[in-house]
Amino acid sequence: MECLPLSRGHNFSAGPAALPEAVLRRAQAELLEWGTSGASVMEVSHRGKEFMAMAEQAEADLRGLLAIPANYKVLFLQGGATQQFAQIPMNLARPEQRADYIVTGDWGEKAVREAGSLVRAQVSATSAANNYTALPPRADWDLDPASAYVHYTPNETIRGVEFHEVPDVGGVPLIADMSSTILSRRIDVSRFGLIYAGAQKNIGPSGLVVLIVREDLLERCPSTLPKIFSFAEHAAQNSLLNTPNTFGWYLAGLVFQWLKAEGGLAVIEQRNRRKAETLYDFIDTSDFYANPVDRAARSWMNVPFTLADSALDAAFLQQSRDAGLLALKGHKLVGGMRASLYNAVEQASVDALVDFMRDFARRNG
Amino acid sequence: MECLPLSRGHNFSAGPAALPEAVLRRAQAELLEWGTSGASVMEVSHRGKEFMAMAEQAEADLRGLLAIPANYKVLFLQGGATQQFAQIPMNLARPEQRADYIVTGDWGEKAVREAGSLVRAQVSATSAANNYTALPPRADWDLDPASAYVHYTPNETIRGVEFHEVPDVGGVPLIADMSSTILSRRIDVSRFGLIYAGAQKNIGPSGLVVLIVREDLLERCPSTLPKIFSFAEHAAQNSLLNTPNTFGWYLAGLVFQWLKAEGGLAVIEQRNRRKAETLYDFIDTSDFYANPVDRAARSWMNVPFTLADSALDAAFLQQSRDAGLLALKGHKLVGGMRASLYNAVEQASVDALVDFMRDFARRNG
Repeated sequence: MECLPLSRGHNFSAGPAALPEAVLRRAQAELLEWGTSGASVMEVSHRGKEFMAMAEQAEADLRGLLAIPANYKVLFLQGGATQQFAQIPMNLARPEQRADYIVTGDWGEKAVREAGSLVRAQVSATSAANNYTALPPRADWDLDPASAYVHYTPNETIRGVEFHEVPDVGGVPLIADMSSTILSRRIDVSRFGLIYAGAQKNIGPSGLVVLIVREDLLERCPSTLPKIFSFAEHAAQNSLLNTPNTFGWYLAGLVFQWLKAEGGLAVIEQRNRRKAETLYDFIDTSDFYANPVDRAARSWMNVPFTLADSALDAAFLQQSRDAGLLALKGHKLVGGMRASLYNAVEQASVDALVDFMRDFARRNG
Repeated sequence: MECLPLSRGHNFSAGPAALPEAVLRRAQAELLEWGTSGASVMEVSHRGKEFMAMAEQAEADLRGLLAIPANYKVLFLQGGATQQFAQIPMNLARPEQRADYIVTGDWGEKAVREAGSLVRAQVSATSAANNYTALPPRADWDLDPASAYVHYTPNETIRGVEFHEVPDVGGVPLIADMSSTILSRRIDVSRFGLIYAGAQKNIGPSGLVVLIVREDLLERCPSTLPKIFSFAEHAAQNSLLNTPNTFGWYLAGLVFQWLKAEGGLAVIEQRNRRKAETLYDFIDTSDFYANPVDRAARSWMNVPFTLADSALDAAFLQQSRDAGLLALKGHKLVGGMRASLYNAVEQASVDALVDFMRDFARRNG
């Protein structure tokens, strides 16, 4: 298929975020007629053999990429990570039970607040006092061995704070909201009781959430839960309890294929490390730009930065947009700028950003 | 954009169902670069001005198509109609309160079963005794004026049974699962307290659910509900409480534009009536095919039919597929065949189906 010339920008959106262009081109080419189905992938039954085969392949590819152990179930659900803030306590805790929350940013705050009406949700460690620019030292975490689980947010998108090691929480199941870091590097899934991730950063389009849960935890799901909220029911039905987000699942499958073709997560991890280093190194050598986060906790995925003079913010945003550098405005809670460097953002885009930043500083510094 | 020759079939899928080809072509053309955004519609923030403008236009177009009164909110949510089976009682009833369910098929059965743990859900009328081939006479409905609501399923997709009039239930709010009938004809929204519909028949791709709710009912939403489940919270945030299914919302917007361009629901209604009449008339004049549903309750959207000799089912399905007639297999609960005739299915497809059926009967009768 021949397409019109494209003027796609360098996309630094925090989410929904950039997707690999090769994936978009594949989806475009087969949007009206998918495989031998005679229809769009959006127009076929989720219980038909074409869709089921695709869905199974997507799960197998994700399992391969993350080396997910056999005693974990993989679910493709709806409602985003935000719905999981409620569904996790509904499934894995009794209302009077304690659950520990490690809060290192705004998403962790939302998670513990939503859980508050469903479980005895405890902020067991927080870096709020330093404005979420560092991680609370593990030694200061107030964990209870009797808690239902320990929940944390490995990467906080708004302030760009990331755990670069999986914390040791003993025998209590560790639950991670990996929305903005899943598939950005290798992880040891066996360290977790449950991992969940909204798709719209490194997986695919929004409206899909991937959940990876250790099988023994499914025994906790109360039989009194409405079926649609029960992880155990979704697992028993291979995520086809009701009509899933079929297009999202399909596109996620294409992203998984792309990740495999690129060489898997070891390669992706190297690229992401280099992209982040490129930008942080430039910021650190500049008097014009600054990032406030503790170097040991800086996010590879989201790099917030400020200009020495915030009166220049508007000019920076306008001129960067004119230069084809998209979505650099910081979150309204922190202001300034933010560059998100998810998997589909190429080194060339980071280089273009640094070139622009250097030039802008020279003209305005 | 020039495309390869297509061999799209006549798509009779019950859902996810056929989409208008013009909509798919538009989505295909702009899949990598949407408007002036420099990115795919899947790659832009749901809080950016391009997406917000599109989302507002989609809602305005839907309001125009259905003539939705100003005192109704329109929500674009996730989780499908099945999640609404639980969310509706969670939002609109107290646990000890009675809610009346009119059950005319398998979806109504599921709705009342899921509500059972959340409210005193009462089967107040059912046509199970006649195998859901007719509607229970209104005079036999056992309604309670103190009930939280009356729930029914205007169209049942599996057995093809449809209400062609909105039932009068007095002052109790009437709630309709319109997943498979919304936008197929004009309706008087003011007769309803709440309408909900999974998108994957007449609205767009799966993974999106549209909910139309009378504002005064939002006052019932318990403040103790997790926010993500609260209609009132979603309404207050214009369905941007969390990241929505952005691609689904976008595609629904294109479908609404298409419906407007086609002439609106008065035109669509005429077409749908004619499509259904074409197929039922042929079945009724045939000794080879049969539909068991009471003529007054036959669905315009889903036409199940059987062959005189079920031993010919496999040959019918294979030969129809070879002739480009897709997805005619009946639901496993009833067997036989089913042709779904949603908005995007053209009269020419129905004519092609009847031609095939006539020929198949002649060759096998």
